[in-house]
Amino acid sequence: MGITRLPSAGFSITIRIGVTADASAIGRLTTCVGEAGAIVTALDVVDSDPSTVIVDLTCDTADATHADQVVRSLTALDGVDVRKVSDRTFLLHLGGKIEVSPKVALRNRDELSRAYTPGVARVCLAIAENPKDARRLTIKRNTVAVVTDGSAVLGLGNIGPAAALPVMEGKAALFKRFGGVDAWPVVLDTQDPDEIVSIVRAIAPQYGGINLEDIAAPRCFEIETRLRELLDIPVFHDDQHGTAIVVLAALTNALRVVGKKLADVRVVVSGSGAAGTAIMKLLLRQGVGDIIAYDRQGALHRGLTGLNSAWQWLAENTNRDNYSGDLKSALAGADVFIGVSAPNLLTGDDIATMAPDAIVFALANPDPEVDPREARKHAAVVATGRSDQPNQINNVLAFPGVFRGMLDAHAEEFTEEMAIAAARAIADVVGSDKINPTVIVPSVFDSRVAPAVAAAVRAAAHHPAPPPAADPGPADLPEIAAEAAAPASPLSN
Amino acid sequence: MGITRLPSAGFSITIRIGVTADASAIGRLTTCVGEAGAIVTALDVVDSDPSTVIVDLTCDTADATHADQVVRSLTALDGVDVRKVSDRTFLLHLGGKIEVSPKVALRNRDELSRAYTPGVARVCLAIAENPKDARRLTIKRNTVAVVTDGSAVLGLGNIGPAAALPVMEGKAALFKRFGGVDAWPVVLDTQDPDEIVSIVRAIAPQYGGINLEDIAAPRCFEIETRLRELLDIPVFHDDQHGTAIVVLAALTNALRVVGKKLADVRVVVSGSGAAGTAIMKLLLRQGVGDIIAYDRQGALHRGLTGLNSAWQWLAENTNRDNYSGDLKSALAGADVFIGVSAPNLLTGDDIATMAPDAIVFALANPDPEVDPREARKHAAVVATGRSDQPNQINNVLAFPGVFRGMLDAHAEEFTEEMAIAAARAIADVVGSDKINPTVIVPSVFDSRVAPAVAAAVRAAAHHPAPPPAADPGPADLPEIAAEAAAPASPLSN
Repeated sequence: MGITRLPSAGFSITIRIGVTADASAIGRLTTCVGEAGAIVTALDVVDSDPSTVIVDLTCDTADATHADQVVRSLTALDGVDVRKVSDRTFLLHLGGKIEVSPKVALRNRDELSRAYTPGVARVCLAIAENPKDARRLTIKRNTVAVVTDGSAVLGLGNIGPAAALPVMEGKAALFKRFGGVDAWPVVLDTQDPDEIVSIVRAIAPQYGGINLEDIAAPRCFEIETRLRELLDIPVFHDDQHGTAIVVLAALTNALRVVGKKLADVRVVVSGSGAAGTAIMKLLLRQGVGDIIAYDRQGALHRGLTGLNSAWQWLAENTNRDNYSGDLKSALAGADVFIGVSAPNLLTGDDIATMAPDAIVFALANPDPEVDPREARKHAAVVATGRSDQPNQINNVLAFPGVFRGMLDAHAEEFTEEMAIAAARAIADVVGSDKINPTVIVPSVFDSRVAPAVAAAVRAAAHHPAPPPAADPGPADLPEIAAEAAAPASPLSN
Repeated sequence: MGITRLPSAGFSITIRIGVTADASAIGRLTTCVGEAGAIVTALDVVDSDPSTVIVDLTCDTADATHADQVVRSLTALDGVDVRKVSDRTFLLHLGGKIEVSPKVALRNRDELSRAYTPGVARVCLAIAENPKDARRLTIKRNTVAVVTDGSAVLGLGNIGPAAALPVMEGKAALFKRFGGVDAWPVVLDTQDPDEIVSIVRAIAPQYGGINLEDIAAPRCFEIETRLRELLDIPVFHDDQHGTAIVVLAALTNALRVVGKKLADVRVVVSGSGAAGTAIMKLLLRQGVGDIIAYDRQGALHRGLTGLNSAWQWLAENTNRDNYSGDLKSALAGADVFIGVSAPNLLTGDDIATMAPDAIVFALANPDPEVDPREARKHAAVVATGRSDQPNQINNVLAFPGVFRGMLDAHAEEFTEEMAIAAARAIADVVGSDKINPTVIVPSVFDSRVAPAVAAAVRAAAHHPAPPPAADPGPADLPEIAAEAAAPASPLSN
């Protein structure tokens, strides 16, 4: 079963329609669309003559199948000629969603001489003499690579690099919008871990951080581990660490709501892939009472054989009582359920077996492990990954601020301390006067989140003060002058 | 010997100076700077008290050594306290010269739902079903990689990827400024041709073209050839093809000035690396009379052994009379000299031995093969790579328009036909009423150049008409609607 999808802007279409020009024509269109379950958001007259009117009708639908039904309903009306259907989401993606722009004017020869030849040669030589100056004199200061092999994109699976690009572009847009970070997609036409590691190592000189994205487990663990060893910039796998940070933030506030302590709760996790593993490691590090991890082979426990190394580690470090029953049985008496797995595994009745004041995070997208409306009948706090339900667990709460903080601190690695600091910062944005069972995380549009996360990460990197502003105007020259002089030049002092 | 450098904006410095507040103090500063050979471009009072004034004096100098002399001259003045020297070129490069910006607004949930999840999933699926849609629905439509291994950067040599980055950023800025192309630096921490080829192949899905840059010869030839075979997007090595296009354009107009035909002239080329080889191949393709190619081993001719394959090809396909004398001897009676080699190889006396109405392109940077002022005493047309001399041969005349045209044509390869069309377009921008010995190429700021080159390249790719505009406003919806509908969706018609 699972939750019904409601019409949303993600499935908005515009339909060009010719209708006979009688008084009730337009009304019949909007009535038809409404009866088909879609929501009219705009109606624009494009052209008319004495006998006909041509309109562009825009409406939100629930999904592609629903959109098709809406169009068919309109086509079936008398005197209605459906001429063209366009899809506003596709329109928005035409030509891509990000662009590369000069930050310097190139209006005349003087500006060209400083930004390019001959002036640029001195900047190159300064970096050749002191490679650390790349952080100061190039895009490395503010730029992150968003790297994928297209092997585990959203819930779509292994769709490859080109088809993954719209997601990576969107991620880059979010990085700039929420964190002021310049992020660039790197979609790789290879799924060989050795080759991915060697490529990322080779392209790294221009980046201040690497954000791995939508790479399938368990390959993602090996790639991340090897890159961390090779590189002197932070390597962050958003599907792991971004998710873990936001889950820890949400769980922190959910436990505040129900008045329990992390050290006292028993947690059942469904899904031991990239996200689940990272969530569990962070909760263990924070001293959680107990965790039982599930995946396709059932409960991870000592005695299972042939596990990959990530699952082996979990089997050894979770499940205090070495429980081996099924997921539903494990839920009985559990305080917290965290699902990062598959849709519709559980019913409200399963949730009813949990401990009093249960917490349910059903994060499978787009369809959660349990219908949140059913879960809410039995649990005290329910969160999902959906934007049309309360308590959306969304990584955009974490990654822009985390990278903003790491770049500003010139961090050379991403640490667990940073993850914990970021989670605490996100949780604390929800003031004690605002927190309740339907508000355990801030809105993704809350402008306080990214700066708070950045400050917390910077502090965790032991860099309490932010660096000077990126683009000094003439008024800022005094403060910048010393930094700006070529370090290798006799002019600097 | 060689041409003296004049003060330029590329070596502009700002000096913070405290002086005693007497009536003549400022005058002594500017006089001192002028006598030291620099040019004062700004004088700003920063602070003052009854006895002292603090000013920021900005001046153009000739190079770093000269800037140092200027500062020392000021320091030696009585009552003058030089407090800080900053370098305007370094200031301009702080934090890098390009940024990544969203083209879509992300103000609210509706916009987020279309640009990112859940709406983006449908765009991903459309590309997964029809990979060619990546050209339409992602940044691939307008994006080029500027790839280097840092092995031959400007005249600076093998300075590596990080130190090459300021040049690649500048190139990316020029791509957008002059061609509207989104270009992204890819600086590689490897100089192994196999690894470079394999990396560029793997990162290619998101790009509509590859611009190789500042990769040393002869490795660059192999890398380019292999990538051309592997990829379905154009691969262009600017040091070769960009230079060859602009040289052919300049030579076309220089021959118009002196009234000679390409088929009748004998050309001597000094420098048979990336640029020289590409120039010679293009001239041969255009039916040049004869060419003698020089490099470290002297004239390339049949009978030399142990040549690399690029030089072997030149030895077999140039030098009709199999001349083996030295460069200066070969110049006697030659119609055209093209230098892409090293400074100060020739004197005015050498140029005097050339045929009447000689053409001299001395393109070594920053110091040409022959002082252009000396060359001009004996040659009819002289060009250099310098921005402070007439007839600057600058690749920026070619690459923005070439890639604009290739992207708009969805070209899958760069062809010689495109190179010839681009050269002709550049030459023709200089109208027959404007052409003269000091004006054989347009200014790099001439806004007619890139569109003319783009149109010529598009035509050469057999795509006469430009595609629809990139970012349709609501008014453009009718034209775009059909293109925008998901191709795999039943909605499209």
